[in-house]
Amino acid sequence: MESENRPLDALNQSRGKRIMVELKNQKQFIGKLKAFDIHINVVLDDTEELENGEVKRRLGTVFLRGDTIILISPAH
Amino acid sequence: MESENRPLDALNQSRGKRIMVELKNQKQFIGKLKAFDIHINVVLDDTEELENGEVKRRLGTVFLRGDTIILISPAH
Amino acid sequence: MESENRPLDALNQSRGKRIMVELKNQKQFIGKLKAFDIHINVVLDDTEELENGEVKRRLGTVFLRGDTIILISPAH
Amino acid sequence: MESENRPLDALNQSRGKRIMVELKNQKQFIGKLKAFDIHINVVLDDTEELENGEVKRRLGTVFLRGDTIILISPAH
Amino acid sequence: MESENRPLDALNQSRGKRIMVELKNQKQFIGKLKAFDIHINVVLDDTEELENGEVKRRLGTVFLRGDTIILISPAH
Amino acid sequence: MESENRPLDALNQSRGKRIMVELKNQKQFIGKLKAFDIHINVVLDDTEELENGEVKRRLGTVFLRGDTIILISPAH
Amino acid sequence: MESENRPLDALNQSRGKRIMVELKNQKQFIGKLKAFDIHINVVLDDTEELENGEVKRRLGTVFLRGDTIILISPAH
Repeated sequence: MESENRPLDALNQSRGKRIMVELKNQKQFIGKLKAFDIHINVVLDDTEELENGEVKRRLGTVFLRGDTIILISPAH
Repeated sequence: MESENRPLDALNQSRGKRIMVELKNQKQFIGKLKAFDIHINVVLDDTEELENGEVKRRLGTVFLRGDTIILISPAH
Repeated sequence: MESENRPLDALNQSRGKRIMVELKNQKQFIGKLKAFDIHINVVLDDTEELENGEVKRRLGTVFLRGDTIILISPAH
Repeated sequence: MESENRPLDALNQSRGKRIMVELKNQKQFIGKLKAFDIHINVVLDDTEELENGEVKRRLGTVFLRGDTIILISPAH
Repeated sequence: MESENRPLDALNQSRGKRIMVELKNQKQFIGKLKAFDIHINVVLDDTEELENGEVKRRLGTVFLRGDTIILISPAH
Repeated sequence: MESENRPLDALNQSRGKRIMVELKNQKQFIGKLKAFDIHINVVLDDTEELENGEVKRRLGTVFLRGDTIILISPAH
Repeated sequence: MESENRPLDALNQSRGKRIMVELKNQKQFIGKLKAFDIHINVVLDDTEELENGEVKRRLGTVFLRGDTIILISPAH
């Protein structure tokens, strides 16, 4: 079985790396992916909240509830 | 198995500490994390509700229903 | 196992006492907590509906469906 | 085990009696509680739909889907 | 066990009869109840869509997804 | 057991035929029903997206997620 | 059993090919389908976000949460 056939496997490859998370309320968070689960609940470390590309808040560790998440992508 | 691989493990590390919870209706609550479950239902002690960074209400113990929560982070 | 580790245990401590329930539609209800379940469906006795801190309706016994609830706290 | 410890037990006490049901779309229905289930799907007999306290429609038997319900209370 | 104790039993009594279904988007459909399931997915035959009491469309057989339904009642 | 007692059985009779699907966002799709499942996820072939009765886009094969669907009906 | 009877089978035929995904927030993503699951969580490679047919962002690998997705179709 190929290790990347499932979305969570692909997400697992970002563990420990910086990712960008976009929420349904249009907020954007960039941080290091520390943990996630099957509900796509996500924990980030060293997190920044962005608004129009500008850092709005620095939040350290953040737990984001999965059902508020639209999109996850490696941070540039 | 590493103890912080799952989001709820990370949340567990905040037990007894002050955290900030943001809801879908944009309200913010800061209190001491007393309990949580897999639905991310959360109970806080010594809770303050904030609006634009100002304390709006002091609520003591508060039960917050998980499906209204967007974000949980250690309080600064 | 400590009896207050889970949110429903904390809620259980309010059984028979007056609590305040806030809904997603911004309505507030104060009444004596008679019953609740894992969906956070709640039954209150001697219930008052409040609007801007004023009593709007007296409703006696009220069943509130859990998925409309944001917050539960002991009534002041 | 006390018979009213659970919200559905409390609801069961209204079986055959007139109740008021409020929906998320702000509509109000008053009728005799004929049946309900764990999803809080509700069937009323001799139902009236109210708007601002005035009867808007008489509907006879009505099935109300649980996830649209906010509140159930004995009708005055 | 009484045959009408549960909401789906009451709905079953309308099988083959004309019913009115109201959706969350305020649309109204009247047709002959052909089939339903525990999700309250509903199939109607000889269906008319109404707007302000006027027939807007004739649709023949219609499958309505349960989670869009607010209310079902015998058609007058 | 009658083969059309359940909504999915009725839907099954449209397999291979042109159907109209209306979504919660008011978009309309007409195409040949290729596949569906218990979540009412639907796959159409030779699909047209309509707006006010006019063809807006031709999309070939389309997967529509069930929870966005309000209504399915045979296409006229 | 025919291999395309179920929506996920049809989706599986797009694996490795470029697809277009439309979200509830009206955003459009085009990328190579790398992975999906029963929740319709989707992972795309070489992803472009489009607005009014124009490329707005290039995102590389993207995880899209299933409950935000309306429609998936082969990209033209």
